[in-house]
Amino acid sequence: MSANIIVFMATGFEEMELTISVDILRRAGMNVKIATLDGTVAPVRGSRGIMMLPDITIDDVVCENIDMIILPGGVEGTKNLAECKKLADILIKMNESGKKISAICAAPAVIVNAKIATGKTLTCHPAAVEYMKNVNFSEDRVVVDGNITTSRAAGTTFEFAFSLVEQLGGKELVNKVNMGVLAKI
Amino acid sequence: MSANIIVFMATGFEEMELTISVDILRRAGMNVKIATLDGTVAPVRGSRGIMMLPDITIDDVVCENIDMIILPGGVEGTKNLAECKKLADILIKMNESGKKISAICAAPAVIVNAKIATGKTLTCHPAAVEYMKNVNFSEDRVVVDGNITTSRAAGTTFEFAFSLVEQLGGKELVNKVNMGVLAKI
Repeated sequence: MSANIIVFMATGFEEMELTISVDILRRAGMNVKIATLDGTVAPVRGSRGIMMLPDITIDDVVCENIDMIILPGGVEGTKNLAECKKLADILIKMNESGKKISAICAAPAVIVNAKIATGKTLTCHPAAVEYMKNVNFSEDRVVVDGNITTSRAAGTTFEFAFSLVEQLGGKELVNKVNMGVLAKI
Repeated sequence: MSANIIVFMATGFEEMELTISVDILRRAGMNVKIATLDGTVAPVRGSRGIMMLPDITIDDVVCENIDMIILPGGVEGTKNLAECKKLADILIKMNESGKKISAICAAPAVIVNAKIATGKTLTCHPAAVEYMKNVNFSEDRVVVDGNITTSRAAGTTFEFAFSLVEQLGGKELVNKVNMGVLAKI
């Protein structure tokens, strides 16, 4: 099965978190699109100055056609994701349908902000723990609670992305993809 | 000390290998520029379809001002790096000055191709071992032999990038950067 996945890209996104997530899930055969919060498909600046191009804009996202959302972190990127009303509406709609929502680094704060994780267990970057309100905070490197998957930092992104691969396609697919990648997972 | 580093970006470059190398070394305070092999600063397509922008072109690279070169892999990216005569000339010139040259995944083949690693110990992606001619092949995840550092695949890039940080700035700098990254290194 090839799931339809949207990875949101806001100015200041953490480049490693976005890139590893997109790359690993595409290697696993998933249909991954990078969506900018801006109105046009134009280069977006990451947290360490790398400019990357999105595939689509947030206005192209149709929740009914999407199986999973991924939110990369970065301090500025997370702030921009959290301030986007359209994204909050998408997260709430996806959550109501029980669709998968995942976030890494500071970006779990966006999930908390949209009030779709109350009472659930989440993790996030050590510097973002203060935003984990009304949830159970875990220090595990990857936390899966129902439809919500969270992880801690750029250095946990391989484990995060492979957890998503396993949820979508099973352990055998993880092993197949990692034969070419050699990540410690 | 802030070293001047060039990361070469050829069409088909492995996105995770380029991004992790650039991001980690910029977090370590190094002056990192991404150089396209093409004649203009325009988006370059990676191996899994992510489009990224370089900072400069290969024609802007002045060997005398550079402390280190990094070559990301990817099958198509490596082929394009290996076919670039200007890059081979830069590698030979850098090596003659004892400057640091590093490559990951299939890209160690570019170093072998430029005949600057004869008799040295290198590693590379399991699928590229056939290109390791006239060198000692190692299966270690990161191999440092004098001025040449090589590594195996996208999943070993954190270890590769942090080895470069350690060579340039020491173990303390590695620990400082990894406090925000949480990589298993």
